[in-house]
Amino acid sequence: MKKRVVIALGGNAILQRGQKGTYEEQMENVKKTAKQIVDIILDNDYEVVITHGNGPQVGNLLLQQDGGAQYDIPAQPMDVCGAMTQGQIGYMIQQAIKNELKRRGVERSVATVVTQVLVDKDDPAFQNPSKPVGPFYDERTAKKLAKEKGWTIIEDSGRGWRRIVPSPDPKDIVERDVIKSLVENDVIVIASGGGGIPVIEEEGKLKGVEAVIDKDLAGERLAEVVNANIFMILTDVNGAAINYGKPGEKWLEKVNFEEMRRYYEEGHFKKGSMGPKVLATMRFIEWGGERAIIAALDKAVEALEGKTGTQIVKGS
Amino acid sequence: MKKRVVIALGGNAILQRGQKGTYEEQMENVKKTAKQIVDIILDNDYEVVITHGNGPQVGNLLLQQDGGAQYDIPAQPMDVCGAMTQGQIGYMIQQAIKNELKRRGVERSVATVVTQVLVDKDDPAFQNPSKPVGPFYDERTAKKLAKEKGWTIIEDSGRGWRRIVPSPDPKDIVERDVIKSLVENDVIVIASGGGGIPVIEEEGKLKGVEAVIDKDLAGERLAEVVNANIFMILTDVNGAAINYGKPGEKWLEKVNFEEMRRYYEEGHFKKGSMGPKVLATMRFIEWGGERAIIAALDKAVEALEGKTGTQIVKGS
Repeated sequence: MKKRVVIALGGNAILQRGQKGTYEEQMENVKKTAKQIVDIILDNDYEVVITHGNGPQVGNLLLQQDGGAQYDIPAQPMDVCGAMTQGQIGYMIQQAIKNELKRRGVERSVATVVTQVLVDKDDPAFQNPSKPVGPFYDERTAKKLAKEKGWTIIEDSGRGWRRIVPSPDPKDIVERDVIKSLVENDVIVIASGGGGIPVIEEEGKLKGVEAVIDKDLAGERLAEVVNANIFMILTDVNGAAINYGKPGEKWLEKVNFEEMRRYYEEGHFKKGSMGPKVLATMRFIEWGGERAIIAALDKAVEALEGKTGTQIVKGS
Repeated sequence: MKKRVVIALGGNAILQRGQKGTYEEQMENVKKTAKQIVDIILDNDYEVVITHGNGPQVGNLLLQQDGGAQYDIPAQPMDVCGAMTQGQIGYMIQQAIKNELKRRGVERSVATVVTQVLVDKDDPAFQNPSKPVGPFYDERTAKKLAKEKGWTIIEDSGRGWRRIVPSPDPKDIVERDVIKSLVENDVIVIASGGGGIPVIEEEGKLKGVEAVIDKDLAGERLAEVVNANIFMILTDVNGAAINYGKPGEKWLEKVNFEEMRRYYEEGHFKKGSMGPKVLATMRFIEWGGERAIIAALDKAVEALEGKTGTQIVKGS
């Protein structure tokens, strides 16, 4: 019996720090990532489902939307921009995986599902926007936009003014049955990109909201939906550490749930960075998952074999 | 036994002529379209698969990509922009259909599949780019860009200079098995948006190309893939006419394949407009489809019942 693994790809799987975001740069990174993923797919022990971040891509798109004003083109809201990056990144990943499989003589179906993720309309995050997005503005422009569009704005550490949006907690995946059916039909699925398109339910209807869902927390929901055995977060560091950057720094190897919860509650993991990753792994184990992993992208295969990275398990 | 119908939505299903393309405008149009489609879905006689155009959306996105230069954000190539509009429009349509179904008390799965459409790398269209895309430029800028990026440019009837791209013929749908499996599992599928993301096969690998595939011709390939009984093109006129705009103008009602082919060869249908629509319907009948329809968006239900629009059938 194969084990099902949901792999959450960090931004570095698609764009490296310092790169601008040309197609060529992104496709080169995606091809390298695809090799790692295909290694795992072709291992007889695993079935793979993929999700990914979209930070740099949606950041660029928001600036382009802003730049389109010179042609009098209306900017799309954030939920639509999220959907656009799902198309963009999903396309690159599905093509690269398909090509890497072909190169190794394997014909398999790969598909990207445009994914809405349900959040609670009463999520306290909506009262406390926290995530900076889009261009920097001077104070006057920022305040004008805030008034015109109802944005919340902040001054971002001397670099100018910026819009901030809420980051609500993912509750469910709207396309859950579709994703499940594809996975059960042996399709390699890419879903919930960029944390999913955030939607609320209002009077029985779905409605997009201008927010950003953490992609690892959404990835964990995806892992529940497809009944995964393993949830693996790939990022630019090879695991989680306690006392990170301080005396007593220690990289975590095999950790059980209770131990991880203690570290989490002691505040060892940085908000908006390692914090949500650790929270996502804890949720997965609490839900009933066998094993959660935080590891470096280029060590994916070894991490899945349990040889490296931080491995979170239920038992003691 | 239900009949399977592939519906190809024209641009007016998403954006009306003269509208700028705000989210609100588009969503309002999409909601109206969704009502029509749900009428058909809830009719016990039909299973529905949807495709759609992306002309105004990709046009806007190309201008925004250009405008992003002011922030030093690299523009994405056309295949990626196509993928982005599949996410954008697919999201709007899948949400609107889901909501309209819910409103009528029905729970059904709706999904957008990011779709690559294979074209022949030796398609003569690559030697004869014909489709104008993106911003208008002055002569100097256009010639500079043409040199820098290898673009083909033309002067567009006094309005300035513009890039032109090839419009190759769709050969196959890369995600055919995925789409088929979803349709067979009772999912309402949105696929091949904007004519699909154009890809060629080179040394056994898929590769995106900067081109635009006609969405009705791609929709016809989709109809073949899902083994549709009926292929229906919805647009802003209620069918095809011979001698259009001339003496002897006659709107076509029920037409058989041979008759339609004669009209087509006589040059009654305008290139880049009614021409490819008629060609798509003829291909569908030739492939073995029962009936193809060209009708107005707001007459979709009656057209499917055979009461209006142009109906193309095999027999005499």
